[in-house]
Amino acid sequence: MRQAGRYLPEYRALRERTPSFLDMCFTPTLAAEATLQPIRRFRFDAAILFSDILVVPLALGQSVTFEAGDGPRLDTDALGQLRERIDHGRLEPIYETIGRVKEALAPEVALLGFCGAPWTVATYMVAGRGTPDQAPARNLAYQDPQAFGRLIDRLVDASTEYLVRQFQAGVDAVQIFDTWAGTLPPAEFARWCVEPVAHVVKGVRAAIPGAPIIGFPRGAGTSLPAYVGQTGVTAVGLDWMIDAAFARAYVPAGMAVQGNLDPLVLRAGGAALDAAVDATMAAFAGRPFVFNLGHGILPDTPIAHVERMLARVRAS
Amino acid sequence: MRQAGRYLPEYRALRERTPSFLDMCFTPTLAAEATLQPIRRFRFDAAILFSDILVVPLALGQSVTFEAGDGPRLDTDALGQLRERIDHGRLEPIYETIGRVKEALAPEVALLGFCGAPWTVATYMVAGRGTPDQAPARNLAYQDPQAFGRLIDRLVDASTEYLVRQFQAGVDAVQIFDTWAGTLPPAEFARWCVEPVAHVVKGVRAAIPGAPIIGFPRGAGTSLPAYVGQTGVTAVGLDWMIDAAFARAYVPAGMAVQGNLDPLVLRAGGAALDAAVDATMAAFAGRPFVFNLGHGILPDTPIAHVERMLARVRAS
Repeated sequence: MRQAGRYLPEYRALRERTPSFLDMCFTPTLAAEATLQPIRRFRFDAAILFSDILVVPLALGQSVTFEAGDGPRLDTDALGQLRERIDHGRLEPIYETIGRVKEALAPEVALLGFCGAPWTVATYMVAGRGTPDQAPARNLAYQDPQAFGRLIDRLVDASTEYLVRQFQAGVDAVQIFDTWAGTLPPAEFARWCVEPVAHVVKGVRAAIPGAPIIGFPRGAGTSLPAYVGQTGVTAVGLDWMIDAAFARAYVPAGMAVQGNLDPLVLRAGGAALDAAVDATMAAFAGRPFVFNLGHGILPDTPIAHVERMLARVRAS
Repeated sequence: MRQAGRYLPEYRALRERTPSFLDMCFTPTLAAEATLQPIRRFRFDAAILFSDILVVPLALGQSVTFEAGDGPRLDTDALGQLRERIDHGRLEPIYETIGRVKEALAPEVALLGFCGAPWTVATYMVAGRGTPDQAPARNLAYQDPQAFGRLIDRLVDASTEYLVRQFQAGVDAVQIFDTWAGTLPPAEFARWCVEPVAHVVKGVRAAIPGAPIIGFPRGAGTSLPAYVGQTGVTAVGLDWMIDAAFARAYVPAGMAVQGNLDPLVLRAGGAALDAAVDATMAAFAGRPFVFNLGHGILPDTPIAHVERMLARVRAS
């Protein structure tokens, strides 16, 4: 998952010197530094771009701000006047960050780009903020599927172009984060998660043949087979709620799996952490597997717990 | 699901005359009236007791208050001094409500009692409030599984006794609501959801042979097979996220299914509601099935939408 470094003192020091979170995303020196910090400290096999999924609405002309401790705010009045296509000029600093990071990384360390999936990004664009149940977007999708579909289509195009540019700037693979997929009934999941991601994957591969794409349909649960069967993603990120036997049965044998330690057990540490690491390693032994968390790291996770986890994974 | 009448004008009129939500739960005339209101208006096949899952912590000696618009508050300092067993004197008004409702209902209308599942009730007891991710209880379960297990054990005993008394007071069946089951990884789901509910079911049946018990493991997802296979519940309530083909495959053929319309599509209404009602009816045709929502009704649901849904279900 995104290793946003909020749990690292060196990240907090960097963040304190920067006026806003978005300024940091759009300042290549700072974003590159934040991307590299966890690699220097922990020697992870891959770095993930320091950025945010809401740069896409921003590049479509919707204003986005981050209130400290209160999450993002988006101007919902702008929904009717979005740009047809994303403003790559606005995103240029991100592409520059990718170039800087790639240059600084050892060749054996992969660099991952990312975007939010159209559905997840749309939930913020429609509600103007994060919502516990994504009710505003789900409601719009029920009441006016045509209008909602137009927004999704625009996000499919924007996400495709954005990911293609990330590859052109130097990333080795990308992730598509569908953080809020889990509140949709299966028919809506198929329509608003699976279909749009399939279009993005197809569009990216048209420009970058064979592009490695990791999908993360958080909360997909029993809809996981539809996702892995129909999106065309190269690999799938699993959240910590999914049953491993179910995942083994339904994820095609050649498809890499990434995940899926409960971020809370990493924060809790101790014997529970050791047991959970062992169980995760055992669950996906013998398959292409990337050990990771089942979602983002919690900001108050002790660094000693991360070290303990890594030692155990590397020794196994 | 619980037909708490917050969407009904007659409920709001009743609620306005009552100082607090808990007073209403503990005043048999008012609680009986709130239980009967939806039956009078809609002629449902079953009534569900008007009450709250947090009366159990209250009867174990933990103070509980409801802040208007802000949910419950529990005194976490009391966790160390809980009663060994629940105070049935405190719950007497609820048993009296059941008697009154049963007397007022036509014999063909079933009366359902309920309790919260031990895990879900524990999440409130540990955190002192509702939490989006149940982190405080999950963290305690990871860091001190013995202490957390003792709390769960106490809730198993309390819930068992409480449900037995509900049967003795006149309910025809009970539901066990595990609203917050969905954030647990499968191993923790087995330990903190499946096992405790299995103990409650066994305990209730020891006193009330053959007692019909409906389990509702909200968010169980890929852990549903463990739940229906190991808890011993008579029937299972499904949330709106579960894939119907998966449920058909894993819920034993003789086990009744209850659910699972998205409460938001009921609020949205229109063509989306009609389509969702038809899909739900078709998904479980030919099996023992109770049409219901996949979770509680949303307070701002238009009554006309409920009427439209019922007409469609009854005509099908």
